[in-house]
Amino acid sequence: MVKKSRNPEKTRAHILEVAFGEIYRKGFQGVSIDAIVNETSVTKGAFFHYFPTKQELGYAIVDEILNDVILERWITPLKAYKNPINGILSRYKKIIETAEDADLPFGCPLNNLIQEMSPVDPIFKEKLRTVISLWIDKNEEYIKKAQELGYLKKDVDTRQLAEFIVMTQEASYGLTKTVGDKTFLWSSYHSLKKYLAALSV
Amino acid sequence: MVKKSRNPEKTRAHILEVAFGEIYRKGFQGVSIDAIVNETSVTKGAFFHYFPTKQELGYAIVDEILNDVILERWITPLKAYKNPINGILSRYKKIIETAEDADLPFGCPLNNLIQEMSPVDPIFKEKLRTVISLWIDKNEEYIKKAQELGYLKKDVDTRQLAEFIVMTQEASYGLTKTVGDKTFLWSSYHSLKKYLAALSV
Repeated sequence: MVKKSRNPEKTRAHILEVAFGEIYRKGFQGVSIDAIVNETSVTKGAFFHYFPTKQELGYAIVDEILNDVILERWITPLKAYKNPINGILSRYKKIIETAEDADLPFGCPLNNLIQEMSPVDPIFKEKLRTVISLWIDKNEEYIKKAQELGYLKKDVDTRQLAEFIVMTQEASYGLTKTVGDKTFLWSSYHSLKKYLAALSV
Repeated sequence: MVKKSRNPEKTRAHILEVAFGEIYRKGFQGVSIDAIVNETSVTKGAFFHYFPTKQELGYAIVDEILNDVILERWITPLKAYKNPINGILSRYKKIIETAEDADLPFGCPLNNLIQEMSPVDPIFKEKLRTVISLWIDKNEEYIKKAQELGYLKKDVDTRQLAEFIVMTQEASYGLTKTVGDKTFLWSSYHSLKKYLAALSV
């Protein structure tokens, strides 16, 4: 019999947070429900009450955690900058500076799920595509603003640039997994900085 | 009893090629030895004669297939170009043009293994790092040549540019897995072309 939690929302969020960390370090297919349950404070029965399948848990991580993490890390802080191009670079720099060394071998949680799950699960693929599209859309909004304010050359294709920025950022985390230090992150940052300078007025 | 092959080298290459395709489509951890054996013309006994463990099979794919595929696709053709920068762009364009639609949802086989196996297997990580380093080294040789020949600005950091080119190319394949068409590949190509133009004399 499943012990009823007095705060089901909090319990659900606790399971999601623990599962997010386990999947980040071991991969979605590489981690078992037992391993996740062991790291939580709930019973296996309670776990299945919230997430009847591992798939449903995975989808909830994309919809409820990754989406917010991407916006909070990369997008929301941009509104504080007069020139959004400076904002994009400052955020990237800050994120690299504050990245924990212990996390570097594990890359980006969004990129990891894209690489692992998109080819084998169409629902994952669609949900992950939605997060990437949102990330690109929001970057494009700020890039357009930079163009309207006269910071960016008029002939810059704002969609292409937004896509390139997101690809650059994901790529630097992806290759970091082979080295486990910040070499590729800084290399990518400095190249993007030069590229954006070439496109700026 | 294992039936002796009359051409062990050919049999080994056949197993590697089949396994490469299966792992490309299903992931290393997602594919079973039985599934690979079923796609080959050898018995399970013969398979284990050549590859006693799935790990050894995976390492051989990195050392013997991925290394050559990367050099053949991206590097060897560069020697035909007077200006290596044009060569890098022409190859990238050609590779995108000739990419099979059916392969797009599966991304790049090297990037896939990096994302999946680097965090969980230090031997894979080291072998994959070696392939990436070689790819960057060879790009840098051609970038240096372009600089010596006066095609590229003297103040370009050749290592940083080589890293950025490889990251850009891997990234475009990585995000392509969420859409399954060539949007991100072309977007990345056109952005890289503009960036290289800005760095050229």
